[in-house]
Amino acid sequence: MSSTINRRDLDFLLYEVLNVEELCERELWSDHDRTSFDAVLDLADQIAEEKFLPLAAQLDEHEPEFDGEKVHILPGVKEAHEAYIEAGFMAAHVSNEDGGMQLPLTVSHAAQAIFSSANISALAYLGLTKSAANMLDVWGSDQLKQKYLPHMRSGRFYGTMCLSEPHAGSNLADIRTRAEPQEDGSYRLYGTKMWISGGEQDISENIVHMVLAKVPGAPAGVKGISLFLVPKYRLDENGNSAERNGVNLVGLNHKMGYRGTTNTLLNFGEKEPCVGYLMGKENEGLKCMFHMMNESRISVGMGAVTLGYAGYMHSLQYAKERPQGRLPGEKDPNSPQVNIIKHADVKRMLLQQKAYVEGGLYLALFCDKLVDDIRTGDAAQQKDLAIFMDLLTPIVKAWPSDYCLKANELAIQVLGGAGYTRDYPVERLYRDNRLNPIHEGTNGIQGMDLLGRKVRMNDGYGYQLLVRYLNETIAEAKNTEPLNEYAQSLEHALQALSATTEHLTSAASEDIKLATANSTVYLNAFGHVVVAWQWLKQALAANRGLAAAQGDDQDFYRGKLAACRYFYRYELPQIHTQLALLDQLDDTCLNMPEASF
Amino acid sequence: MSSTINRRDLDFLLYEVLNVEELCERELWSDHDRTSFDAVLDLADQIAEEKFLPLAAQLDEHEPEFDGEKVHILPGVKEAHEAYIEAGFMAAHVSNEDGGMQLPLTVSHAAQAIFSSANISALAYLGLTKSAANMLDVWGSDQLKQKYLPHMRSGRFYGTMCLSEPHAGSNLADIRTRAEPQEDGSYRLYGTKMWISGGEQDISENIVHMVLAKVPGAPAGVKGISLFLVPKYRLDENGNSAERNGVNLVGLNHKMGYRGTTNTLLNFGEKEPCVGYLMGKENEGLKCMFHMMNESRISVGMGAVTLGYAGYMHSLQYAKERPQGRLPGEKDPNSPQVNIIKHADVKRMLLQQKAYVEGGLYLALFCDKLVDDIRTGDAAQQKDLAIFMDLLTPIVKAWPSDYCLKANELAIQVLGGAGYTRDYPVERLYRDNRLNPIHEGTNGIQGMDLLGRKVRMNDGYGYQLLVRYLNETIAEAKNTEPLNEYAQSLEHALQALSATTEHLTSAASEDIKLATANSTVYLNAFGHVVVAWQWLKQALAANRGLAAAQGDDQDFYRGKLAACRYFYRYELPQIHTQLALLDQLDDTCLNMPEASF
Repeated sequence: MSSTINRRDLDFLLYEVLNVEELCERELWSDHDRTSFDAVLDLADQIAEEKFLPLAAQLDEHEPEFDGEKVHILPGVKEAHEAYIEAGFMAAHVSNEDGGMQLPLTVSHAAQAIFSSANISALAYLGLTKSAANMLDVWGSDQLKQKYLPHMRSGRFYGTMCLSEPHAGSNLADIRTRAEPQEDGSYRLYGTKMWISGGEQDISENIVHMVLAKVPGAPAGVKGISLFLVPKYRLDENGNSAERNGVNLVGLNHKMGYRGTTNTLLNFGEKEPCVGYLMGKENEGLKCMFHMMNESRISVGMGAVTLGYAGYMHSLQYAKERPQGRLPGEKDPNSPQVNIIKHADVKRMLLQQKAYVEGGLYLALFCDKLVDDIRTGDAAQQKDLAIFMDLLTPIVKAWPSDYCLKANELAIQVLGGAGYTRDYPVERLYRDNRLNPIHEGTNGIQGMDLLGRKVRMNDGYGYQLLVRYLNETIAEAKNTEPLNEYAQSLEHALQALSATTEHLTSAASEDIKLATANSTVYLNAFGHVVVAWQWLKQALAANRGLAAAQGDDQDFYRGKLAACRYFYRYELPQIHTQLALLDQLDDTCLNMPEASF
Repeated sequence: MSSTINRRDLDFLLYEVLNVEELCERELWSDHDRTSFDAVLDLADQIAEEKFLPLAAQLDEHEPEFDGEKVHILPGVKEAHEAYIEAGFMAAHVSNEDGGMQLPLTVSHAAQAIFSSANISALAYLGLTKSAANMLDVWGSDQLKQKYLPHMRSGRFYGTMCLSEPHAGSNLADIRTRAEPQEDGSYRLYGTKMWISGGEQDISENIVHMVLAKVPGAPAGVKGISLFLVPKYRLDENGNSAERNGVNLVGLNHKMGYRGTTNTLLNFGEKEPCVGYLMGKENEGLKCMFHMMNESRISVGMGAVTLGYAGYMHSLQYAKERPQGRLPGEKDPNSPQVNIIKHADVKRMLLQQKAYVEGGLYLALFCDKLVDDIRTGDAAQQKDLAIFMDLLTPIVKAWPSDYCLKANELAIQVLGGAGYTRDYPVERLYRDNRLNPIHEGTNGIQGMDLLGRKVRMNDGYGYQLLVRYLNETIAEAKNTEPLNEYAQSLEHALQALSATTEHLTSAASEDIKLATANSTVYLNAFGHVVVAWQWLKQALAANRGLAAAQGDDQDFYRGKLAACRYFYRYELPQIHTQLALLDQLDDTCLNMPEASF
């Protein structure tokens, strides 16, 4: 039994639900087929198990240290990275021409999920490097790309994202880092950046920071933000890392979890000159960032899924092996203890986890597939799909980071006292996952994004698409006898969500504060409707699969149907209470006076 | 602003809601009055702030270590303990005659809450010692009491509870530790105990273990359990610690949180003889334990409250001081940032915490007061109150450990990235609190206890009492205009809970497995009804107070009314979905096949 992602599940989602093989019919991916996809996933499984997983507990126990001069990270991390890079995962999504595997995002992200589930904090450096490289690829000048991109794709240089500042964590409008233009076309940067993951390490030869800053005379707020590439070492004429650039580590943050990834406070231009290079145009830095944001938020959601998933797999294994207690009604104290998986309440905790993590995995992969379809799919649908992806972005970030974190909490509970010790990974997985509702826009901000912007954008067209897609699935499920019950529940839920959405969007034009006061409640209800829809899609596929299945496959499909049933019986009904609260425009929280806390 | 328990709140609960001053009219506590109670709480505040609080982060960072010979604990712990003991808190509840303060449990437990909020893992040794001493007081022979009790009350000896074994965590029926009677009336013990908090330390001169074991020929299961007092050092003729007894530390468990309290695996009689002394009668050990169980479970609930409470106070302070972002509708990027407490979603996270932790604090103190009333109150009511206390026991253990843990999660979220670092206490408070849903009977076991036993005991008389008490409050609130809305909601909730309870108890006689399959859901719904009732009681007192209040007091009472409103608008309605699920006797979890996970 795997302790990362269950491959049977991953295969089901990729091939039976999402039908990723259809991507191979498109020109960009025509060299691929299921065999090549499987080979990539097999390789990910192997390297994750051999290099990433065994390091995870150790890396948590021995977090990176800064001795005032240098940061020291467990040597095994570099070794794991080398295996990952050597196998080509750094450039899994990059074109063959540029030395990559030219994989669809859905498949490269599925492989990434396997690594993440094994050891997210060792992996993070590589994910950040990919994002920074992708940003360079899109927005960098030819010269910058030529100098830096190949080294980032090859893992010789790593990358970071430098957005937050000590006084402006979530709110980029207020950043103060300055970038002063120089005669040679470069800039000098001055400022401090906070919460920078991978901001310093002793693994890569150089670090390429993507830094948001303001040029002199820039407009106030987000309209005056520019993006700069700032290397740790400037390159010499031969493109090698040479002189130290003025980026200095002030200190490391010591975190609850995710400890293997350094998190840093960086100074720019405090002691030595800090040279940066403009990416895109001045004052358009946020546009550059936003270009990456959908994928970043899918990544955070996927990260949350993988940690929840790992907890589920561990607690399932434990429950199957640990004897304790007897079933209700068993009076004979001499009867043998049963394995705890036999207890109804343990089953509930496992099934709840299964519903969350397998639902979350599908949600993230579904969004990846959307990105692939937006890029290469039916031209007539691309615009619709892009709008739909925008709508789903806050959901794919927030839902897994709330509910797969909850799954981690349940995994601890299944193990009981053992789960509370550091001898088992479940408490670490919780600690690692606790970051995900916070970074890349807190879930509170996702709620505001969804209700304050996304459902209202394009005159609500994104929401109309949601209704259309859900109704297609509902119609199909209504004709599929065992799923009819869920189709009706989903139809009812969707109608209620639509009524509330209309009510709130109309209220928003009168009083935006009141209308959005409970946006987190809206986010939760909306997310549950989306995931219920997707569980129905999984159930439809499982129902098809079950017809011809035998042995283990039968068990597998029945498990999917049971998890869907769990979601419709235990989870989805909760939204009606939430929607009723929203319909009342409840102002209890909004109007709570500060002095009364 | 206090960073432990808000004294204004504690005073409100003790004097305005619970009216603890009435206890001073009873003979046992007639030497006390509000002045003496206040002095005790002031002293607790002072010692907690000076000695316990400053040590908390350090103790978490430097957990006790076992060098193979000895356990080393930060010296500050002993110092804090000395201040606590010197001030008389070890014997706060003990009679004057025996050198104690002779305080009601409600007041001594309120003082304990202050210490617990400051540093629960330093405090735990003392709480365990009290419990062990109380057990000795009730069940020990005169000779045992004479030899051990004074030293435990004075803090010279500490105590532990040794119940669980490696193969039997939650299930005492299966313990294997043997106790063989000797000619001198003592016993020799052989076995291994797991999860023993405070099982070894370098603070006290001696450790008195309360150990469950089985004598030869004892009946199988819980009916064959006996209780023994087993000292770490046997006492010489003068009552001083002398020869080492055969209790040996195998190792320390390394936990997610609560790190300052050693958690041990102990061997009995493996190398040297391990002498134990019978407490109570053979095969009646569980009765001895159960005698303490109500108070132990209140203590776990109270511990959970205090950690949630500390997180609330920290996140409130942070939200008042941290500027970030602007309110919806503010378009001017040059306008100053607002403190985050102005954001509706941050208010929601604070109000939710407030509702949980202040609701939980009242719940725990209410149960303490019940214990006091059972001991000294109106003789005609004592039996009823004892039955009611039995019914509430799973609630007071489980509800705070679920919801005040949730409060800790919200506190982290309020602080955002800062909350995820170890520079702030909120992540530690979560980690400390994560134990509480697990120990002293997992919350899953509490659910089985409630639905499988407590609501059905005495032909449902406990539940009938609940209905009676709630209806009294409902009637009062119906006549109190601003609270009428809540009275109606509670009435509706109670009717629904009663219908479900009747349905489930009747189903239980036919199929106990099916009827109790969702007992955790029942536990949650039941707990929310109880806490809603208690919030209404708080609101009634606040409403009375508000009539004559001015200044800060007005703000305080309005805060109570707002928290009550929050609970009735956001929390209580959730139970109806849960009860509907229970009414259907849903078997999704119960019948999930093991192979389908």
